[in-house]
Amino acid sequence: MMLETTMSAIRPLDETAMAAARELHGRLTKPAGSLGLLEDLSVRLAGLAGACPPPIPEPAAVAIFAGDHGVHAQGVSPWPQEVTAQMIGNFLAGGAVVNAFARQAGASVTVVDVGVATPLPVGEASGPADPSAPRLVAASVRRGTRDLTVTAALTRDEALAAVQTGIRVADELIDAGAGILLTGDMGIGNTTPAAVLIAAFTGADPLDTTGRGTGIDDPTYARKVAVVRAALARHTPDPADPLGVLAAVGGLEHAALAGLILGAAARRTPVLLDGVIAVSAALAAAAFAPDAVAAMVAGHRSAEPGATVALRHLGLDPLIDLGLRLGEGTGALLALPVVTGAVRVLHDVATFDSAGVAEK
Amino acid sequence: MMLETTMSAIRPLDETAMAAARELHGRLTKPAGSLGLLEDLSVRLAGLAGACPPPIPEPAAVAIFAGDHGVHAQGVSPWPQEVTAQMIGNFLAGGAVVNAFARQAGASVTVVDVGVATPLPVGEASGPADPSAPRLVAASVRRGTRDLTVTAALTRDEALAAVQTGIRVADELIDAGAGILLTGDMGIGNTTPAAVLIAAFTGADPLDTTGRGTGIDDPTYARKVAVVRAALARHTPDPADPLGVLAAVGGLEHAALAGLILGAAARRTPVLLDGVIAVSAALAAAAFAPDAVAAMVAGHRSAEPGATVALRHLGLDPLIDLGLRLGEGTGALLALPVVTGAVRVLHDVATFDSAGVAEK
Repeated sequence: MMLETTMSAIRPLDETAMAAARELHGRLTKPAGSLGLLEDLSVRLAGLAGACPPPIPEPAAVAIFAGDHGVHAQGVSPWPQEVTAQMIGNFLAGGAVVNAFARQAGASVTVVDVGVATPLPVGEASGPADPSAPRLVAASVRRGTRDLTVTAALTRDEALAAVQTGIRVADELIDAGAGILLTGDMGIGNTTPAAVLIAAFTGADPLDTTGRGTGIDDPTYARKVAVVRAALARHTPDPADPLGVLAAVGGLEHAALAGLILGAAARRTPVLLDGVIAVSAALAAAAFAPDAVAAMVAGHRSAEPGATVALRHLGLDPLIDLGLRLGEGTGALLALPVVTGAVRVLHDVATFDSAGVAEK
Repeated sequence: MMLETTMSAIRPLDETAMAAARELHGRLTKPAGSLGLLEDLSVRLAGLAGACPPPIPEPAAVAIFAGDHGVHAQGVSPWPQEVTAQMIGNFLAGGAVVNAFARQAGASVTVVDVGVATPLPVGEASGPADPSAPRLVAASVRRGTRDLTVTAALTRDEALAAVQTGIRVADELIDAGAGILLTGDMGIGNTTPAAVLIAAFTGADPLDTTGRGTGIDDPTYARKVAVVRAALARHTPDPADPLGVLAAVGGLEHAALAGLILGAAARRTPVLLDGVIAVSAALAAAAFAPDAVAAMVAGHRSAEPGATVALRHLGLDPLIDLGLRLGEGTGALLALPVVTGAVRVLHDVATFDSAGVAEK
């Protein structure tokens, strides 16, 4: 129900606001087109907001969805499953890379447990005295997915619950004032369902959607590709049924991220995508509501090959391309100043007329 | 004399500090190598500083060197020469894109007149009440270069004076506390000498080093390539004599930027390069002192083709690649948070041990 309401609230870009932004760009004190992709981005954000200039996208809020994966039992990752919970402790204590980048960017960090398998560390969260400290939201649907090589990872109801959690988190963050949402994720093994999702939604071969995740050796990589191929053969996911795809071969954090993206799009708020987990979820969001792509900004090109396949399918150009493959929201945070800068130009820069600068 | 002192102060990277940074990266709570090029960058900055972690590169200072060009008479740009002075007024009033990006990044802006041809606007600068306002440094060597298609653009003494101005500005900014310098430039027609410099230092063909600058039509572009070719034929600049190259075919802002880069390198302070003007000056700096490359960080890949030729010659990978071709320091400013973030990781991120996170 909430999913349908959200989907129906998602609208195409506002052409009038986009035309106004293009016209304004032509009057600002810089050669026409000299800001390259930043100009296109700012025009699109005007279209998303339905206003020129669109609001400066701040403050920024990172939402890290964390979950575990039954497919971990197939040996697709060299890391123990407990690391998912341990890293949540690290996020809440402010010690991870995402925290360092978020502090630098002035972004808040919200960690959402949508399905961690092992007990969360206790007593690690900062007290209520510091409202800027990372926050934990308990929204576990189940303690990790089932093994998608054996059965569906989730029931449709479980997948829907995770999607609705993502929508709810988007609404809460935007209600609290966020001007842009950034996707984050944590889940040992979660590049395997991402590779299956990307193959399912784009039709690409598993060899092109499967990467080495956090860094795996050749035998593990071969096993991972075989697992992705087997999952597709067993479930034959139908891209026209995104909830069914998420249930069969997805993860709880992937489903929740799809919800977050839909929630942002319904509120006409930009959502800055991180890496391969985010773009696999973005494919699901686009399958639910094609116009949701209008709200998506690709933060970076992950080193994971599936990310490039997904970005091409979505028609998105990433802002940063530095070989990152960490997740957590780190690539999105690095791209945030580019997005803010692109919009700020439409607010702050003088026109030829007002500055007394001659035109060519 | 000051140039020679500066050149002799430039040293190779400190291998001990780089090894310490690599070792530290291996203990931080992230998969090894998962920050891609940011890890390489942070290791290099440790080597530059001779310390691990290296200092966080802040505050940042943008130095915009402005000059005019005798070659403007050959019709290589559609903009009137007065725009150089008018844009200085815009910088000092805070209305340009560089100002918008500098405010966002918390960077100071210093405009240095090293050779503007037309009168500067007066009464535009903010009063002394605001120490964060853009500052104008009067250091004019001459009112624009000579036409390099007819004669040498500068005498050796004039080129040397501009280089020394750049060194002096670097010293002053670093003495005032800057942790990183960003290159900026303003000069109608200045992509033409940049194209000649890049051809002279790399041996590349003018067709590969000449671009459309602020946006020129086909006949203007053909004329511009012919001008670059004629300048090379007339002056046969010797890349082993960088001062001679700058004098024959350079610009005052190009020479000053070479000095700024050398000055930063001598002080073991990173210098974040903007676009094609900056990288043409960086080639001159590297010809003066090859180890100066250690201090250079390529902010972005300008849409000007010569920038890519120069970056390849210098062995530098740009951090941002968004089709910008504005100059002013805008591309460097967009890349600044990436540089700061790369270093911040070495300061802020917890180790596996301290965070209680299991390793694979």
